[in-house]
Amino acid sequence: MLRGDITKAIRNAVMHELAEVGYGRLSIEAVARRAGVGKTAVYRRWSNKLEMVLEIVSGVAERSVPMPDTGSFATDLQLVTFIVSKALQHRIASQIIPDLMAEAARNPKIAETLQRALRTHQLAVGEKIVGQAVERGELPAGTDPDIAVDLMLGPLYWRLAVARTPIDDDYLEKLAAAVLRALGAKA
Amino acid sequence: MLRGDITKAIRNAVMHELAEVGYGRLSIEAVARRAGVGKTAVYRRWSNKLEMVLEIVSGVAERSVPMPDTGSFATDLQLVTFIVSKALQHRIASQIIPDLMAEAARNPKIAETLQRALRTHQLAVGEKIVGQAVERGELPAGTDPDIAVDLMLGPLYWRLAVARTPIDDDYLEKLAAAVLRALGAKA
Repeated sequence: MLRGDITKAIRNAVMHELAEVGYGRLSIEAVARRAGVGKTAVYRRWSNKLEMVLEIVSGVAERSVPMPDTGSFATDLQLVTFIVSKALQHRIASQIIPDLMAEAARNPKIAETLQRALRTHQLAVGEKIVGQAVERGELPAGTDPDIAVDLMLGPLYWRLAVARTPIDDDYLEKLAAAVLRALGAKA
Repeated sequence: MLRGDITKAIRNAVMHELAEVGYGRLSIEAVARRAGVGKTAVYRRWSNKLEMVLEIVSGVAERSVPMPDTGSFATDLQLVTFIVSKALQHRIASQIIPDLMAEAARNPKIAETLQRALRTHQLAVGEKIVGQAVERGELPAGTDPDIAVDLMLGPLYWRLAVARTPIDDDYLEKLAAAVLRALGAKA
């Protein structure tokens, strides 16, 4: 395998092991076995399990919220809610997220890394799409990107990852419309 | 101890043990010891650990979202967001919730009970306060209580239990105002 392919195989193996056995019982041995590589290939990349998991999961978490730039705030919003709702309904995500949240509640290092990864990237997305919308005159000047992000992601997370109540396209449409009104968007 | 006091002592012990060691490592022995009662006192009330934890946590989860009836939708909303934000910031809740969510992701029985407890009670709260607001002419007829609940609780849960980003009164005020606009409330 090429070096990049090995890294990719290890990343995939980590995500699958996390979903199957959880962080607590995940072992470097099992990851290496599943990836079809030696343990040294893992240790060459990450010095321990915590570092490995945090780096890989943070990366996936960042990629799961895209940076849309469709030229319209309403469409950017639709795109974000659609993609986030798909990501949260993904079988692997729905196993891994609650498990890491539980670890984070007991391990400040995990908590800090996850929160930084989540918050930094999402605020960047919020600032960009809200900032562009303000410039285009679609949102009032001074719109708070922080609240905007919480209103976009909170209901989806709450409903899909916590209450685990299914949603349909109608729900996503209503939610996007509610967020537009909440932010005082011009129609 | 009176029978009611014993039940209360066991309930408290379960919440503290859940926060300290988590569901996986919680034992009936440790609960009885902490409550200062015999194991039989526990088994007289619940037939096993799962049943005990679910019944106790569901009860606390229900009580944590109050059924406000202040005569004004804006004030009901402020009350709900204030109390939920306090509950989610409580040290014990912030340990127990992620842990049970992780168990729920692996155990359909836990998932089902938690979700029913969360969803049923919250929808009842949503239907009541939204229904009253529609009757008073504060919200448009046909306002969806489902979306209203998700907009009230989602951002708080997301921010406090997931991103673990602190909030202040200013944030709560902005959020309540955003939800009022989202639902098309009359000022």
